[in-house]
Amino acid sequence: MRTEVGIIGAGPAGLLLARLLHRAGVSCVVLESRDRAYTEQRQRAGMLEQGTVDVLRAAGAGERLNREALEHDGIELRFDRRSHRLDFPALTGGRSVWIYAQTEIVKDLIGLQLKDGPPLVFGAEAVAVTGLDGRLPQVHYRDSAGEHTLTCDYIAGCDGHHGITGSALPASVARTFERTYPYAWLGVLADAPPSCEVLVYAHSPRGFALHSMRSPTVSRLYLQVPADTDVSAWPDDRIWDELDARFAVDGDWSLTRGPITSKSVLPMRSSVTEPMRHGRLLLAGDAAHIVPPTGAKGLNLAVADVVVLAEALADWKDSGSTALLDAYSDTCLRRVWRAEHFSHFMTTTLHTDPGQSPFDSRLQLAQLDRVTTSRHAAAELADNYAGLPISRQGPDH
Amino acid sequence: MRTEVGIIGAGPAGLLLARLLHRAGVSCVVLESRDRAYTEQRQRAGMLEQGTVDVLRAAGAGERLNREALEHDGIELRFDRRSHRLDFPALTGGRSVWIYAQTEIVKDLIGLQLKDGPPLVFGAEAVAVTGLDGRLPQVHYRDSAGEHTLTCDYIAGCDGHHGITGSALPASVARTFERTYPYAWLGVLADAPPSCEVLVYAHSPRGFALHSMRSPTVSRLYLQVPADTDVSAWPDDRIWDELDARFAVDGDWSLTRGPITSKSVLPMRSSVTEPMRHGRLLLAGDAAHIVPPTGAKGLNLAVADVVVLAEALADWKDSGSTALLDAYSDTCLRRVWRAEHFSHFMTTTLHTDPGQSPFDSRLQLAQLDRVTTSRHAAAELADNYAGLPISRQGPDH
Repeated sequence: MRTEVGIIGAGPAGLLLARLLHRAGVSCVVLESRDRAYTEQRQRAGMLEQGTVDVLRAAGAGERLNREALEHDGIELRFDRRSHRLDFPALTGGRSVWIYAQTEIVKDLIGLQLKDGPPLVFGAEAVAVTGLDGRLPQVHYRDSAGEHTLTCDYIAGCDGHHGITGSALPASVARTFERTYPYAWLGVLADAPPSCEVLVYAHSPRGFALHSMRSPTVSRLYLQVPADTDVSAWPDDRIWDELDARFAVDGDWSLTRGPITSKSVLPMRSSVTEPMRHGRLLLAGDAAHIVPPTGAKGLNLAVADVVVLAEALADWKDSGSTALLDAYSDTCLRRVWRAEHFSHFMTTTLHTDPGQSPFDSRLQLAQLDRVTTSRHAAAELADNYAGLPISRQGPDH
Repeated sequence: MRTEVGIIGAGPAGLLLARLLHRAGVSCVVLESRDRAYTEQRQRAGMLEQGTVDVLRAAGAGERLNREALEHDGIELRFDRRSHRLDFPALTGGRSVWIYAQTEIVKDLIGLQLKDGPPLVFGAEAVAVTGLDGRLPQVHYRDSAGEHTLTCDYIAGCDGHHGITGSALPASVARTFERTYPYAWLGVLADAPPSCEVLVYAHSPRGFALHSMRSPTVSRLYLQVPADTDVSAWPDDRIWDELDARFAVDGDWSLTRGPITSKSVLPMRSSVTEPMRHGRLLLAGDAAHIVPPTGAKGLNLAVADVVVLAEALADWKDSGSTALLDAYSDTCLRRVWRAEHFSHFMTTTLHTDPGQSPFDSRLQLAQLDRVTTSRHAAAELADNYAGLPISRQGPDH
């Protein structure tokens, strides 16, 4: 099989890239190791930056999103038993964030691609990429029928943090920057209407908690737990009681309870691989970098990578120039490090590190106090959260 | 001896408090353990916030400052071999910072006090404070003539981090929050004109460096060194070579060398004692809190404490009300923790911790990149550096 761009992975990065390339007249094939049902059910993020929503709409993938996504005009910060709302449109010059689950984006993009898009092959497991330094690199994959080769001009590695492309960069050129955190999130889905119309980030001496939602009838709730936590240690009542304790404020507030339909433990980790390109292999999204979920940046970063990559590949197809492809890694990494820093800031400001001193706790409260009383500090958080502009020049242009 | 306010310590906090109380018609006595010559020569800070300059002028201590202080319209940040200027007046709505050494403020205030002010007793070493829970607390001190007692309505502890008043709070009521850093500053004075008209804060893989000045002919330069550094390990040539390496940028720049007239190692530490009051003892400045010098906040925080304290004591004298005295600790601590956070932020963003990972180093660069490209991030740094308003309501009003 021969195509211009071989895309490994049918998560939001790979599927959106295929959509953008298709619209730009660049041929591609998407290989996904899992089946369609599994791919459409992978629970992931749910908070979209304004720029991500704009990109999905412009790509023709906004029809259901426009009907179903919940627009949020900010977030709530809770600490010291007090609540503070950050008004994003007022602080950022009109930008909002949107709740629309990653699973829904994936379903929408799969639907579009199967209807009129380039090939999307489920159950096709990429096992190796070769010839990255040559003109025609190859993806070797296997499916139920046997082993196959996809010959391309470029390969896009969109196969996530545990995929094969992230580790395909030779150790002599790639450098990985990492940080682990001594805590994780216990995440639950509950059939209960959200208890607040926006996300609530709670700093508490008992640990961090986050109130989020998937829809007007489904709450998504998270508790900071030790990194090695076993879900079985958390029966439903214990979860609700602990959420109540961490969200407690002076004044009216109650958390609406309901049947818990899912429980899982999410690890917290930061990682960046530099560069994001080697020869004819280009990495995008989690294959190149992951963030702890506190800043809601993972999916949004993947979308930003893919926009830059699609522009660069379209320009190569149109003009034969590799200038944008050559700039791809540097362009993306500036935004990536901004998001890594913001995610680390949100994580370390809101969580209780088991090793932190009373001085460190006071610094967290001083930071939170500042964010809720200084317009500059609030706007800096809002700008980062609602998302910086996406462009080939990077986040500051 | 009997007075309304017994002030322990003739540093800038004690001397300025005496000046403000004197002008408000509150009687006081200042006790200083050292002699006048020593007191006037203690090398300390040299960067004044706009608010500190305003207070000194309003207190009648601005005559020489108005002639000799150097007004700075910002600072320079240096990292990744690039230089970036932060324009404070543009970012803060007109506020500047000023270079005028603490030694000069002390000389000015001593001169004023000896001319027309309340008693200032040198060589008077406070050894104990008693009766803090009663109506008439006492300072017990000794001088060359023997032991004496100063009976007061209130005692102001302005005797610094190693003074007796900070430890006079019973362990049952006081709590101390601390942080040490695994590095120190090697500070030198050189008879060389400053190499740049503003302070230059340099982040470098070799460690932090700071270019400052005391006058148009005297440079004040600092190098990050390990916490246990012996000055003798740093001959002059090594100091200049290391400064050159850390300040290096792409483009024109050279550091003007000259005879080094003083070398010393400054420890880096954060500490806050809460509350800042116990009974009739009120702590101000370093007696209650210290900051690492990176944010230039120590002297300015002391001045802010003293303004709040003088207002509270004047109100007590005028009205008999202790409401402002009762609020003193809370009022000051909000500003103190803001400054502690900022000082910690500047310190940890600019210094190389021997234990930091390559990921941490990248985060520092991402933070510095942001401060020099985002107006909100730049304004947040400038606001904190140039100083928040001083008022009895705290820093946000």
